[in-house]
Amino acid sequence: MSDLPLIAGVELGGTKCVVLLARGPEAIEERVELPTTSPDETLTAIEQVIDQWQGFAALGIASFGPVSIDRTAGDYGSITSTPKPGWAGTDVARRLAARYDVPTGFQSDVVGAALGEARWGAAGGLADLAYVTVGTGIGVGLIAGGVPVEGLTHSELGHIRPQRIAGDDWVGVCPFHGACVEGLASGPAIAARAGMKGQDLPADHAAWDGVVHALAQMLHVVTLTGVPRRIVMGGGVIVGSQFLLPRIRAALRASLNGYVALPEIEDVDTFVVPASLGHNAGPLGAIVLGQQALLDR
Amino acid sequence: MSDLPLIAGVELGGTKCVVLLARGPEAIEERVELPTTSPDETLTAIEQVIDQWQGFAALGIASFGPVSIDRTAGDYGSITSTPKPGWAGTDVARRLAARYDVPTGFQSDVVGAALGEARWGAAGGLADLAYVTVGTGIGVGLIAGGVPVEGLTHSELGHIRPQRIAGDDWVGVCPFHGACVEGLASGPAIAARAGMKGQDLPADHAAWDGVVHALAQMLHVVTLTGVPRRIVMGGGVIVGSQFLLPRIRAALRASLNGYVALPEIEDVDTFVVPASLGHNAGPLGAIVLGQQALLDR
Repeated sequence: MSDLPLIAGVELGGTKCVVLLARGPEAIEERVELPTTSPDETLTAIEQVIDQWQGFAALGIASFGPVSIDRTAGDYGSITSTPKPGWAGTDVARRLAARYDVPTGFQSDVVGAALGEARWGAAGGLADLAYVTVGTGIGVGLIAGGVPVEGLTHSELGHIRPQRIAGDDWVGVCPFHGACVEGLASGPAIAARAGMKGQDLPADHAAWDGVVHALAQMLHVVTLTGVPRRIVMGGGVIVGSQFLLPRIRAALRASLNGYVALPEIEDVDTFVVPASLGHNAGPLGAIVLGQQALLDR
Repeated sequence: MSDLPLIAGVELGGTKCVVLLARGPEAIEERVELPTTSPDETLTAIEQVIDQWQGFAALGIASFGPVSIDRTAGDYGSITSTPKPGWAGTDVARRLAARYDVPTGFQSDVVGAALGEARWGAAGGLADLAYVTVGTGIGVGLIAGGVPVEGLTHSELGHIRPQRIAGDDWVGVCPFHGACVEGLASGPAIAARAGMKGQDLPADHAAWDGVVHALAQMLHVVTLTGVPRRIVMGGGVIVGSQFLLPRIRAALRASLNGYVALPEIEDVDTFVVPASLGHNAGPLGAIVLGQQALLDR
């Protein structure tokens, strides 16, 4: 790993940031956590950390979003329409790229975590995968051939409207879509429906049926993009449960119903797996983004 | 266009094949149509055409599917599990690549049409787009950065299970999924539900409501992959109707509900457009595949 380039990586999260100087998971030279406060205070604190570092060849940034990743757009490198107070329209990548004058990669935090899990985590070096996070929100990162799938923007497949279980017409909690997958199966959705947090909800509670169904429908869609050889699942709702992943796998298998007759998918226990890098997936993804920016010069 | 390389392109369709010697739409030197019969008879007829041609630098093949596009798989280059009698397991790309010893590109017919429309058709040179065909089946081709989005396989987003209109529980016609989008909105689905072909069905027939809703839900998903800057729609069901596209646009806009606040998407009349290359989209896509194979050597 020592022959990989040294990269400065930033994971900009909604509540905290992680700044990493590393070549990979076994070659982390520095790791600093900072609280996410106002935009300028937070970015200045990040700069004060990186200013002390020397010898990094590139910079990678994985940010909470939505973010503008369209290099042809005037707002490239910024956080766009976030509801987080004060942060909408904040330039992140252009500011940091100008300060350090090294190749800079910029993506959403979900894509960052996907890249981290792809390179060093539960995807075991596969170049084609999806990373799904189920927590306060629901996000999907798609990686094909080792690089993020992107065009106009990053994936927002957490906001698709799934087929419902017959007879279930609960309206969901998404302010845009009501009963989209995030509106049905995110942490806040579970709490709203069941009256308690998912981690306190018994495995046999009926509310899980709708959660499992919605997540399996999203995985059905993710599978049919054709991209993933494996789907890695993380986030608080998944990590906090022993029974959820097996139920999601069974529901996905039933929903696809043998349509894509490939062994990678039919062996659902190796197709849908839990994340393995934990809280380092995002920062390590930022390191991968820096490495890719170096290659893209 | 004369400085583009000369390519031999093959569109292998379910009922006919088109073999093209061309550099682009305004530089077509030869065009031959052949019926699709048995695998060996059809491929031999294609070879007899190409054997007469000289000076092509690469070969592109866009085939009805499903096809194996995974270069690490033993069946790469073949048609896999098609219901078309005699064709399941037919090697296409390896046979033709070995015969002509030039770089060879191979993809599904939908991806081929997507590449054709992207380069020379309704996508107006955009590098990021989706092509959706609605006919006997429903297919989606995703192009990002000018190349097909692929990982394990090609997209099969016609087989996602959409949210339904409240109170509509028609079971659909897909043998795998019943009421997936193809099972609700393909030509055979419309005929099964309404008792007549779509082209004969009045615009105010209630059956269109379910068709429009299912297609708009699929476009909602395609949009949220993040890939397309434009969605191009073709296929018999779309081409045969004056009112369908405006209704799909309106339903898509209502379904997204402003969630992705980008001008490319919000201007739904330029975001969702009809295909423009007609029956040449596939063969010209095969030419693009050959050009890409040349670059990938």
